[in-house]
Amino acid sequence: MRVISLITDFGLHDWFVGTMKGVMLSRCPGVPIVDITHAVAAGDIRGGALALLASARFFPRGTVHVVVVDPGVGSERPALGVATEEGFLVGPDNGVLALALTQQRVRAARRLENPALFLAPVSRTFHGRDVFAPVAAHLAADGPFEALGPEVSDWTRLDWSEPRQIGDTLVGEVIHIDRFGNCLTNLAESHLARLTRPASTVRLSPKVRFAIQPCYAAVAVGQPLGVLGSAGYLEVSVNGGSAAEALELHVGARVTVH
Amino acid sequence: MRVISLITDFGLHDWFVGTMKGVMLSRCPGVPIVDITHAVAAGDIRGGALALLASARFFPRGTVHVVVVDPGVGSERPALGVATEEGFLVGPDNGVLALALTQQRVRAARRLENPALFLAPVSRTFHGRDVFAPVAAHLAADGPFEALGPEVSDWTRLDWSEPRQIGDTLVGEVIHIDRFGNCLTNLAESHLARLTRPASTVRLSPKVRFAIQPCYAAVAVGQPLGVLGSAGYLEVSVNGGSAAEALELHVGARVTVH
Amino acid sequence: MRVISLITDFGLHDWFVGTMKGVMLSRCPGVPIVDITHAVAAGDIRGGALALLASARFFPRGTVHVVVVDPGVGSERPALGVATEEGFLVGPDNGVLALALTQQRVRAARRLENPALFLAPVSRTFHGRDVFAPVAAHLAADGPFEALGPEVSDWTRLDWSEPRQIGDTLVGEVIHIDRFGNCLTNLAESHLARLTRPASTVRLSPKVRFAIQPCYAAVAVGQPLGVLGSAGYLEVSVNGGSAAEALELHVGARVTVH
Repeated sequence: MRVISLITDFGLHDWFVGTMKGVMLSRCPGVPIVDITHAVAAGDIRGGALALLASARFFPRGTVHVVVVDPGVGSERPALGVATEEGFLVGPDNGVLALALTQQRVRAARRLENPALFLAPVSRTFHGRDVFAPVAAHLAADGPFEALGPEVSDWTRLDWSEPRQIGDTLVGEVIHIDRFGNCLTNLAESHLARLTRPASTVRLSPKVRFAIQPCYAAVAVGQPLGVLGSAGYLEVSVNGGSAAEALELHVGARVTVH
Repeated sequence: MRVISLITDFGLHDWFVGTMKGVMLSRCPGVPIVDITHAVAAGDIRGGALALLASARFFPRGTVHVVVVDPGVGSERPALGVATEEGFLVGPDNGVLALALTQQRVRAARRLENPALFLAPVSRTFHGRDVFAPVAAHLAADGPFEALGPEVSDWTRLDWSEPRQIGDTLVGEVIHIDRFGNCLTNLAESHLARLTRPASTVRLSPKVRFAIQPCYAAVAVGQPLGVLGSAGYLEVSVNGGSAAEALELHVGARVTVH
Repeated sequence: MRVISLITDFGLHDWFVGTMKGVMLSRCPGVPIVDITHAVAAGDIRGGALALLASARFFPRGTVHVVVVDPGVGSERPALGVATEEGFLVGPDNGVLALALTQQRVRAARRLENPALFLAPVSRTFHGRDVFAPVAAHLAADGPFEALGPEVSDWTRLDWSEPRQIGDTLVGEVIHIDRFGNCLTNLAESHLARLTRPASTVRLSPKVRFAIQPCYAAVAVGQPLGVLGSAGYLEVSVNGGSAAEALELHVGARVTVH
């Protein structure tokens, strides 16, 4: 049976995520449901898009990924279902699916406009429960993709800031801070590969520089390092500590490597 | 197979919820278990009751709902199992099941007094693990309801404060603040339907009034609105923000509509 | 089918736990996965070891327990798989499995050194995803234990501080504070059984003493008590409140009983 994965900004404080799962299990009995994260900041479309980008390729082929970060819920913003070689992506058409779509081979995309698939009535504030959960269950149960709604050929993109390359220097920025205080940058492995000499040094300011290392333990506890992180991006870390705190980094902070 | 749903005030900081699931899977291999929420405030019976009320009807028929908000654990307070047309409810008999029971058709209720169904020995501090989890697993595995214990004809009610109606004005209060800062009130759709003219305005104080809207996006970002929320109650919200913060609302705050 | 349980210090803020589950479901379709906790403090090996000790025996026989609290990830620290009469334990060989191993009957232990079982390439920062998840899935799918790597006859122990006994007095300490503020001590039921007279009094300081009770409700709301907790250790609690706050207790605080 297909797996459904879930990314939302709903948190775990209320009954929202559990209610979505109740709908999914009602429409597709026994479907395995995996939480990727529900801690995306409220309305943070980039945060949701990044969580999907970093995790989707580790799921079984055919997984139905549902992302509900939906500040426009109840308005006229369209909703999207995409069939790819790897599986399905379902969510509001606001960019939250866009990063993952750059890495998957798209077969077809449709707007979610078939009320026969939705709960009735559809609320104006909780499409996660009333629209996205039942559509995901429909796909997980091998329901026809064509039933979702009219085909579309494009969707909302996300203008992720690209790093700038100046000779053998790359200028990027922090895009996510994880639970350990590691600072994920937008400097992907592919960017680093473009340099004529391997990047060896991270520079945060004229006075704050340190080396790129193979792993945290390559430096003493409490010391900073750059490291190619598990999502395929350069990360700024502190061995056994929080780089965000120790180096006073935040999302958007500039990170230079050379 | 039946689904088990879980609502507790255990949080996710310790091993309590996982241990309950270990017991359930030991007694009913393969049973699907869905977390509704574990973030009910410690000992907050109303909070647990509300989470069940808002979510239960979205689960598959036959689901076994377990609610463990149990400040009297280990004392002589009775425990309850209820069979309804919709499924089963299991928890301490302290009111935590009471709101959902007003919306389900009850077939029979029994006290949980059959030690053959419990773990042995039963601890005096963790009936979630030793009593409620194995009883839920028994029901999920289609064990006989009669085995739970002696039949009872009544249970602890919850005196939910009802809104007051004065002509075409309804006076209610905030009963839950969600993760986005939306303030759920006790003004249900059914209360609003009793007014001779549709409610159009929310009043928090003589100077703070705003309109009831169909969805968040009907007002500008940062502006307040009333909206019929997904649980069937009027909510006070701020588009793209936290109504609780912006309007300084808390549980128990008065909300008037007319 | 075998169950996989998960204990990590990853938190639920990022996509780490969900990604591990994606890998597990890719390698062992349909495997039931139970979160015990992901709120172990970052790098807190004792905290992870305690969560496993307190919960493992409540899981089905044959469960594969995975514990990833791994401050040395990417260094040369070995990783371990252990087959016991009760099931399997998988994690870094840093002591995080050691407490549970004192309570299980070990059949064999092996180092995780078979790259054919890992994701390729193995990152230097996320062995939870690249090493532990696929090895756990291999075991959950009844893959041969011998395939994990070379057999070993020993592993890293955890020098848990043992309580001291002086006549009929036991001197222990707080080892965990739960979400309710209950303070778990290292005074196990077996230590208390060694006293010639049953322990009746907890002493925190010359002036702060209170009785050991059968359950929280044996004292008035707001009053302190000692109680044999559900993990089999004496706990210091306050009925309806937080002992950690009310009594200013922290991990490591001395607790005496007599």
